[in-house]
Amino acid sequence: MNANEKFIAAKAHVDEAAIAPLPNSRKIYVEGSRPDIRVPMREISQADTPASFGAEQNPPIFVYDCSGPYSDPAAKIDIRSGLPALRQQWIEERADTELLPDLSSEFGRQRAADKSLDELRFPGLHRKPRRAKAGANVSQMHYARRGIITPEMEYVAIRENLNREQYIASLRASGGLKGQKMADMMLRQHPGQNFGASLPATITPEFVRDEIARGRAIIPNNINHPESEPMIIGRNFLTKINANIGNSAVTSSIAEEVDKMTWSIRWGGDTVMDLSTGKNIHETREWIIRNSPVPIGTVPIYQALEKVNGKAEDLTWEIFRDTLIEQAEQGVDYFTIHAGVLLRYVPLTANRMTGIVSRGGSIMAKWCLAHHKESFLYEHFEDICEIMKAYDVAFSLGDGLRPGSIYDANDEAQLGELKTLGELTEIAWRHDVQVMIEGPGHVPLQLIKENMDLQLEWCKEAPFYTLGPLTTDIAPGYDHITSGIGAATIGWYGTAMLCYVTPKEHLGLPNKQDVKEGIITYKLAAHAADLAKGHPGAQIRDNALSKARFEFRWEDQFNLGLDPDKAKEFHDETLPKDSAKVAHFCSMCGPHFCSMKITQDVRDFAAQQGIDEAEALKKGMEVKSIEFVKSGAEVYRNV
Amino acid sequence: MNANEKFIAAKAHVDEAAIAPLPNSRKIYVEGSRPDIRVPMREISQADTPASFGAEQNPPIFVYDCSGPYSDPAAKIDIRSGLPALRQQWIEERADTELLPDLSSEFGRQRAADKSLDELRFPGLHRKPRRAKAGANVSQMHYARRGIITPEMEYVAIRENLNREQYIASLRASGGLKGQKMADMMLRQHPGQNFGASLPATITPEFVRDEIARGRAIIPNNINHPESEPMIIGRNFLTKINANIGNSAVTSSIAEEVDKMTWSIRWGGDTVMDLSTGKNIHETREWIIRNSPVPIGTVPIYQALEKVNGKAEDLTWEIFRDTLIEQAEQGVDYFTIHAGVLLRYVPLTANRMTGIVSRGGSIMAKWCLAHHKESFLYEHFEDICEIMKAYDVAFSLGDGLRPGSIYDANDEAQLGELKTLGELTEIAWRHDVQVMIEGPGHVPLQLIKENMDLQLEWCKEAPFYTLGPLTTDIAPGYDHITSGIGAATIGWYGTAMLCYVTPKEHLGLPNKQDVKEGIITYKLAAHAADLAKGHPGAQIRDNALSKARFEFRWEDQFNLGLDPDKAKEFHDETLPKDSAKVAHFCSMCGPHFCSMKITQDVRDFAAQQGIDEAEALKKGMEVKSIEFVKSGAEVYRNV
Repeated sequence: MNANEKFIAAKAHVDEAAIAPLPNSRKIYVEGSRPDIRVPMREISQADTPASFGAEQNPPIFVYDCSGPYSDPAAKIDIRSGLPALRQQWIEERADTELLPDLSSEFGRQRAADKSLDELRFPGLHRKPRRAKAGANVSQMHYARRGIITPEMEYVAIRENLNREQYIASLRASGGLKGQKMADMMLRQHPGQNFGASLPATITPEFVRDEIARGRAIIPNNINHPESEPMIIGRNFLTKINANIGNSAVTSSIAEEVDKMTWSIRWGGDTVMDLSTGKNIHETREWIIRNSPVPIGTVPIYQALEKVNGKAEDLTWEIFRDTLIEQAEQGVDYFTIHAGVLLRYVPLTANRMTGIVSRGGSIMAKWCLAHHKESFLYEHFEDICEIMKAYDVAFSLGDGLRPGSIYDANDEAQLGELKTLGELTEIAWRHDVQVMIEGPGHVPLQLIKENMDLQLEWCKEAPFYTLGPLTTDIAPGYDHITSGIGAATIGWYGTAMLCYVTPKEHLGLPNKQDVKEGIITYKLAAHAADLAKGHPGAQIRDNALSKARFEFRWEDQFNLGLDPDKAKEFHDETLPKDSAKVAHFCSMCGPHFCSMKITQDVRDFAAQQGIDEAEALKKGMEVKSIEFVKSGAEVYRNV
Repeated sequence: MNANEKFIAAKAHVDEAAIAPLPNSRKIYVEGSRPDIRVPMREISQADTPASFGAEQNPPIFVYDCSGPYSDPAAKIDIRSGLPALRQQWIEERADTELLPDLSSEFGRQRAADKSLDELRFPGLHRKPRRAKAGANVSQMHYARRGIITPEMEYVAIRENLNREQYIASLRASGGLKGQKMADMMLRQHPGQNFGASLPATITPEFVRDEIARGRAIIPNNINHPESEPMIIGRNFLTKINANIGNSAVTSSIAEEVDKMTWSIRWGGDTVMDLSTGKNIHETREWIIRNSPVPIGTVPIYQALEKVNGKAEDLTWEIFRDTLIEQAEQGVDYFTIHAGVLLRYVPLTANRMTGIVSRGGSIMAKWCLAHHKESFLYEHFEDICEIMKAYDVAFSLGDGLRPGSIYDANDEAQLGELKTLGELTEIAWRHDVQVMIEGPGHVPLQLIKENMDLQLEWCKEAPFYTLGPLTTDIAPGYDHITSGIGAATIGWYGTAMLCYVTPKEHLGLPNKQDVKEGIITYKLAAHAADLAKGHPGAQIRDNALSKARFEFRWEDQFNLGLDPDKAKEFHDETLPKDSAKVAHFCSMCGPHFCSMKITQDVRDFAAQQGIDEAEALKKGMEVKSIEFVKSGAEVYRNV
């Protein structure tokens, strides 16, 4: 199927499923130091605790929200116009950029002039491309290193804190000893094991600036993608996830890819990579960027390869350079660049089970072999840096030699390339260009830590961005899970962003359902990692959901979860809606055992008597065992 | 829906889906020291490597097979007759048991005499119940400690080795230097990190005996379940998984439960727990046991509770004892016994987020509170041991106080109970009764290790059997994955058996599809754990599958995976079958990059020249870069 022929720009419309409101959720904005810093969050309201459990009020909780204006009922969504340019003012204020009279890329200009593309071209962009003034560097790292806290940095600081102060205040406001005890309980969290991460209780704009200046975090936001809502990728922030989309030569249309993007961000994709290799890559990307509130990443070599009709050895620096500029002026926020594939590493793949499995890596290896010299990516790395800093595109230094099987994990080729990526990181940093490092792939559990440790050491704590890793090869059809295990583990060890894997991995291109399955799997893996690291406040959502579960607030349990729709559907599938809201009908877990309540009473009894608690417990238990039998000794209660 | 009324024994039939042959698979039996030791395995044959990749023969691989006679085309399957009693001869030979004239359990006799049950009763059992002769102990642990290697022990030793010698011999037989290199490659495995496990390269019957004698492993096989194929649960063996099935008061019929059992073992359930709490528990269990080639576990307190109409405080030792004997004479292989729920631990749950979430635990806690004394499980623990050893039922010491939320993980109540389970283990071992220990539950990643470490210490390396654990609470609908992450992790640390969690966890009762999803998730988690521990030979299947993937042997890739049906379905969903068998059409991974082949040639060149390999590589690369361009420089090849 190639639906491109059928795609008509004038008829493009948003996927209605992507903008349907989520239950009991409200879009809120937390304002920063200036009125145009308005940081979106999702507020999930909760029912009160039923009387039998204590009739408490449960304040709303706030969760990270990647969905942009699509989940704002006040927003006018028209994908033919694209999203508002919320960062434009900030960029302009810095007065270090200029609007260009025309696109700088030759290919970009060709496409723009091609009338045959008018029908499918994104119609809504009426501004000119922007670039740093001559000699200027517009990267967030450059500002950070000069001590400047940009609005973007303040924005992500607010975003990372998830309105926790408000939640805590609401909890405390319930008043009284009981209210304070509940508040303490809801905020309690297990100490983490963070392997050297620095996780402040509150993220300040200055902390963000410092992390970016040190290269430990990046804010990928191209000045030509002012529609994006700033987000940060770094080990000392919430673990992020990326969703890959993109058409191929055989399947998918522009409309489908835009739908996959809005679908991805609805479920929590923090960034989206457009890996299109099919027709109309340029136009597809334009539609995606103009409508994306999250950073967009690409692998520019894919498009460059299309420009030379798939013949890797015909690639040149000039073609690649034009592609980088073409995409930078469209607004791509980070580029995967496989500059670490050196000639001497290619023979190291000879003993592998699965050779080179990265498409970009194999393209570059082929080029290196054909020309018998180092690639133009490596040779022109500083030229690339010049482009990156003129638009603030971040590097995602690609792991072209990542292992494609358990067998190949942590081998010489992979680790050799990683070391080179570390060297390239230092070069990029000399240019104040933001960098993250891509990682594997397929790695058994016991070898994951070595990946993280070497990456931290060799790449000087630049954010790690891994694909899984898959912890076994034997479950095609379930590689979101084989890799979710590895992703949670490497996230715990310190990986900043996890690139999702869908159930279709190795088998086919993901459809919308696969995209969602991949996203939710990776959201839960990232969250498991945050909990394990002891990320401040990470346990709030678990505590709230578990409290709802224990109190048989079914709707709250669904709504506080990552996928309210599926939770509700599963629940209703087994049991009729209303009769199911009593304890006996849980399949395995979650029954309410009122010894909880009894022993709570015992503790109150101890407090009233002012006697030793252990003694009180003993006495209380004796009293209570009599009361308990008298009262009917009901373990389960209907709510 | 309650389909029990409609279930008619005379019309019962096997689920056709459960006996459909798996592709390219053949049931084989490896014979032991006597002709009636015939250990089943699944042999998966593979296609030859295509000429462009070297035209190698790929010998069949052997995988663990839980599916019993259902996957044997030579077997006559009639679930009204049940499976053949393959262990009967071994049991009889030991001459330490006797057939009883009638059931010993009063309840059992009542049910047998109840004509109204005739219509749904399992019709195929024509033998009498069996019990140890007075004073005899028929547990495998008892034999092991007396130095006896039983046929059961030899059986599991053969089973654990997975016919590896045969596979290695076939690999080596391909002959020549190239064949030897391939064999070395296919057998290569990363060193594991085993945290103190003892993993011999080959499992001998004597090793099995020794592990059982030491209490580090168990073979759950009741003398009244002679239909079962022996399997072993222990940290130094392959990690096993359990599937929970069972009806409830509101849903599911006998037929459905039998179908879930045959479906579970088809996909790799090593044991099955029948957790029925609905109608006709006794009869449902009979159908399941008589048709199950895997050990069946139960939680007898569930049925005992039904006998007192759900009033926990009315439970007595006598009722419970009769239930144990009833189930032991049916052939239940292991009993979950919540004897560690002590009175003093109950108040410790007062500060919990989710109180007591184990059904058995809450029943016992309620009993303890109502009577204000220790439970009859604890008080009569040695009496229970006497029953266990008369039938060889293994203990699965239940974690009645397991955490039901991240918040409650590793708290005093949980760990107090674990310590008591360690004390009970020693008592059971004084009776030569086999023991495994149940574990949590909900535990964040960084707290999982403590669970394993304490369990090993306090329970003296008795096998650990955990439910997940779930590593976050925030993903209802995806708890097979939140828990699969924890399961792989704790399996790596040393857990012997992983109790599956299905996507329906916390939401409803699993259907057949959920059972399969749970099983496959746990099979891959268990395998990831085996790889991480460095279990000998664990990587053979990964290597074989990855080789197939690299060589674009699509059918082999599907067939070597855990779920050939889904892999094939996913593949065919995206792309038409035949045109898809070329490299370009992989979505993300797996393209064949022929630099592998080139550099392989370079290595051959080095070998021929007898020169230094590094030098040869350099020369070879120069030569090859010319050849490469001449030959068209194709990275991807059509197969």
